[in-house]
Order: sequence, then structure tokens, then C-alpha cells
Amino acid sequence: MSPEHATAVADYFVWAEASGNKTQGIIKMTGPEPVQGVMPKYDMKIERDTKLSQLIDAGANPAPLAARIGTDVAIEKAKAHGFGLVGIRNTFSSNGAQAFYAQKIAENDLIGIVCSRSPAAVSGFGSIDSLFGTNPIGFGFPTNNDPLVFDAATSAMTFYGLVLAKARGEDIPEGIAIDHDGNFTTDPAEAMEGAILPFDKGYKGAGFGMMIEVLAGPLVASAWIDNKTFKEEWGTLIMAIDPNLLVDATVFKTNVTAMIDKIKASRTKDGGKIRIPGERANELYKNVLASGEVEIDDVIAEQIGIAKVQ
Amino acid sequence: MSPEHATAVADYFVWAEASGNKTQGIIKMTGPEPVQGVMPKYDMKIERDTKLSQLIDAGANPAPLAARIGTDVAIEKAKAHGFGLVGIRNTFSSNGAQAFYAQKIAENDLIGIVCSRSPAAVSGFGSIDSLFGTNPIGFGFPTNNDPLVFDAATSAMTFYGLVLAKARGEDIPEGIAIDHDGNFTTDPAEAMEGAILPFDKGYKGAGFGMMIEVLAGPLVASAWIDNKTFKEEWGTLIMAIDPNLLVDATVFKTNVTAMIDKIKASRTKDGGKIRIPGERANELYKNVLASGEVEIDDVIAEQIGIAKVQ
Repeated sequence: MSPEHATAVADYFVWAEASGNKTQGIIKMTGPEPVQGVMPKYDMKIERDTKLSQLIDAGANPAPLAARIGTDVAIEKAKAHGFGLVGIRNTFSSNGAQAFYAQKIAENDLIGIVCSRSPAAVSGFGSIDSLFGTNPIGFGFPTNNDPLVFDAATSAMTFYGLVLAKARGEDIPEGIAIDHDGNFTTDPAEAMEGAILPFDKGYKGAGFGMMIEVLAGPLVASAWIDNKTFKEEWGTLIMAIDPNLLVDATVFKTNVTAMIDKIKASRTKDGGKIRIPGERANELYKNVLASGEVEIDDVIAEQIGIAKVQ
Repeated sequence: MSPEHATAVADYFVWAEASGNKTQGIIKMTGPEPVQGVMPKYDMKIERDTKLSQLIDAGANPAPLAARIGTDVAIEKAKAHGFGLVGIRNTFSSNGAQAFYAQKIAENDLIGIVCSRSPAAVSGFGSIDSLFGTNPIGFGFPTNNDPLVFDAATSAMTFYGLVLAKARGEDIPEGIAIDHDGNFTTDPAEAMEGAILPFDKGYKGAGFGMMIEVLAGPLVASAWIDNKTFKEEWGTLIMAIDPNLLVDATVFKTNVTAMIDKIKASRTKDGGKIRIPGERANELYKNVLASGEVEIDDVIAEQIGIAKVQ
């Protein structure tokens, strides 16, 4: 890879490690869901380009690279015209945490909405087949402080969680996955032959999963409802909206900041503090920046060939 | 109201009744959550207008009227420029089911995303105060047949459900609402003084509720996290996206149609049929159109002054 592209991918992994998104971090440079298990076939190509939009054929380049480039394109278009919509197809790994890209957009005083579809692993609407991917969505909003960033998979657990439990010989929690015949199972191997349930175990979660399957599948010319194999295609949709389309961005930011303050000042049953989405990740990331150090599991360090430092 | 405006509101109510969305139907012409409990103060005003967007001050006109007009504006802008974003503020009732507006957008070969915030009734992030509205979101996608339409409140039950249970002296289900002190309650009156839980009873549901609170609150210059009273303001955000921004709309529609077919052909545990979002509503609506008749509760017919026909 070019130094520029390598840096873009490294940026993502450093952020994921530093912000506490360890399962979306450098573990993906190795292990069962590698970011580059499929090698790039050709340079990324722009397949469609309008003032407001761009469709990118990633040519099997790593998804975090394609998503980062797509995020920059969406930001540029939204800054110029108020709205930017970027679709990415032909990627064969997860782009990681949607929060990363949504936050980049929000840091540019824009609203970011980023979602990805992944190979089928989640059931829905009464089906016992896996239909949708774990299909995460991330939102980023500018505030007067750190951006407000929320990121959630639409599945009751990540596919990576299944992979990890299987490798460790551990059970998964009850009531969140079914086997091939539709019976509840706590065996991760059986769940991989069956399906994970939607995050709410019901109709609404399945609906959100399906909406993302459409937005990051057919809308970006990617695969949809395919088989459970990492050879299959991921897809990503990136949206950037300038709040100035409707209200003054400065007023918007001040109101979102005040909303966060009001939530944090509300009552809890045990008198504890309320954490809003993204808050902990931002704290952790700043601590790492300040200390210049990020802690990595020995096992992972060994696997990716980093000498053990002590 | 002008005949044109009255027809627009009537259109919504006929659709809601005919499509089985009874709790979002003509019951709102009466009862505890009336569509016009606050009288219009002045004609709707355009507060901001760009090629891609419009902010509408509804002047306390009925929300279904403002949302219908806003939907038409979003469609027009998306047809002309690929994207339309409309915000509506200064409404004092629910606009009803987001599905109605999302479907109208999808019927124009556009992707519709419509969401509304409502007065605070739902807790989240460990708070025992009500923070967000029941905040529904609707999605509409064009297909080669009926549009695919999904619509969900981000609360575990509707506020109207509480109102109805209280009026009937009935309990609400266990585990979906808390009283003022944060203890679970099945008493609807206590829940109204406390809070409903998010639809998944957890962090993700609260996150989706908060995202809608921002999108249909500060982004449309509406209220946010206010008190539980129907004197407070609702807010609506309407988004229309032309799929041609990324892919050919005809290909997109064919793929979404094929996705629906694949879901419906997947296995169920009892061999039963799978219903995808919006399917039942479309069936019911067509039946009513064909028969020319829609059934209305005697009690509601009496309350709104319709003579009993038989």
C-alpha cells in the first residue's frame, strides 16, 4: 500500500484501540475476521459521481481505507452543497466501528450517518434463516465540545463475539441465538449454522436491520442477504448533512450541547453518573493521546509480530 | 380550514383507519391526544429555503397537515436535485404514523426517511427521568410492487397506550415502564409520572431515541426534552433521497423487490408465512379501497358525531 493509504488504515486502528473499541481494533489485523483476508484486486474506482454523491468500487481494498476515503468525499460534498452521500461496494471486510467515520463528519460541523451491511448472520420477522448482517449504524453530531457519537449493531451480539466464543470453547448467553432448526442455543458453533437474533430480539430490531441491509446493500450496488462466509461482500453508506440546510449550525451545536447537559443532569436510581453515547470512547482516546501509550493484549501483539515492550 | 387543507388531513385519517393504524387514526379527532387540541395561530410560514431544504413554521396548524405539505416539498426537491430535507416546527400534536409520509415519498421512486420527536415520556442511559419522546421513525423504499415501509416508535409502548390503559382502568404489561422513583410499575398513571422504557429496554433503544430527539428537535428548531404535557411542541424531519444519486433506480427497485422475495421465501419454525414491514397495512388499505367501506368503532363514531350507519 502507498504510505498515504497505509496511514489512513493505521489511523483507524489506532483510534479503535485507543478509544476502547478493542473488538474493532488491531485484532482485525489477524484472527478469523481479517481486514485484509482478501487482497486488493485493483485501485479504487469512482463509478458514479454527482455534485451530491459518489459511488466507489473499492476493488477489494481494505474496508477501513475505502470508508475513510468515502468519508472525506462526503464531507467535501456536504461542505460545498449541503449534502453528501457516498456508497462503497466491493469490500470484503468490516470497516470497523461506524462511530469513527460519523465522528470525522461531526468534527467538520456536519451531521454524519454511516451504516454497513455485512454477510448474513441475523434472523428476523419470524424467519429461522439468517437474513441480514449484524448491520451497524453510527450517528455523529457536532456540539460545542466533543461530537455526540452513537454507534450500534442491529444484532443481539456481534458475529465476532460468536467467533471468539467458539475459539475459546465458551458458551454464548441464553436467548440471543438460534440453531439451524430455530431452537435457542448457547453453542456458538450451532449459532453460526443458525442465526443471531436482532438486538431487541423482536420485530423492530429486525426492521432496523433490514433498513440498513437496503441502504448499504442495493443502494450501493453491494450484495444483500447472502451466505455466511467472509468471502462475501460488505457494503457501506456514508451520509453527511450540513445543519445549515435548516437552522444556523452554531445554534444547532449549542442546543445539542444543552441537550447533553440536561441528560447528564437527570436523576439516576443509584445517584450514579449518566454516560451519553461516545463519551467514554472520547475520554479513553484523549488519555491515550496525552500519555502517548496504548495497551495491547500480549497475545495480539505476538500474533501481529510486535516485539513485546516492557 | 380551506377545503384543500381539510382534504389533506382527511386523507391521512382515512389511510390510518383503512390501513389498520387505528391508534393513529380518527381516534385523534377526539380523546386525550387530539390532533387539534391547540388551534392554529397563523398560516404556515417558510422560515428557510434552499435548493435542497426547507424549514416550515407550522403556526400550530395540525401536524398531519404540516407533515403532508412538508412531504410534498421534500419530494419536489429530491426530484429536482436528488435530495430534499424538510423540517417542521411549531406543531402541537402528533403527525400520526411516519409510515404514511415515508410511503408517499417511496411512491415517487424516492427513499423516504421521516422521524418525529414528541414530548418527553421515555427514559434512557440509566436515567429515571423521562428524557425523549416516543420518537417514531419511518422508512419507505420503492419496489416493483408496493413500497417497502417500516415504521417504529423507539419506546416500549406508545404514550397513547398509557392514556388508553389509564382511561380503561387497566394495567400495562410488566417491565416496560417505571414510576417517578425509578421502580417498575404496571400502573399507567404512575408510568405517566415516571417514564416508559426504550423499545429494547436498553442502551441501544435509548440511543436511537436520542438520535431522533436531535434530528427532529434542534435540527428543526423545535423543542427537545421538555415536560410531559401535550401543550408542548412536536417536531418532524422529512428526508427524500433519489436512489439515482448512487445506482440506477430501476435496478435498485428490482433488487429491493428480490430482497423482499428472498425474505418471504425463508424458513419459519412453524412453516407459517413471513410478513415484511408494511405488507399487512397495504393489504388492509387495498381491501378498504375495493369495498369502499372502513369499519369504525361505535364509540369513536359517536364521539366525533358520525351518525351510526347500519
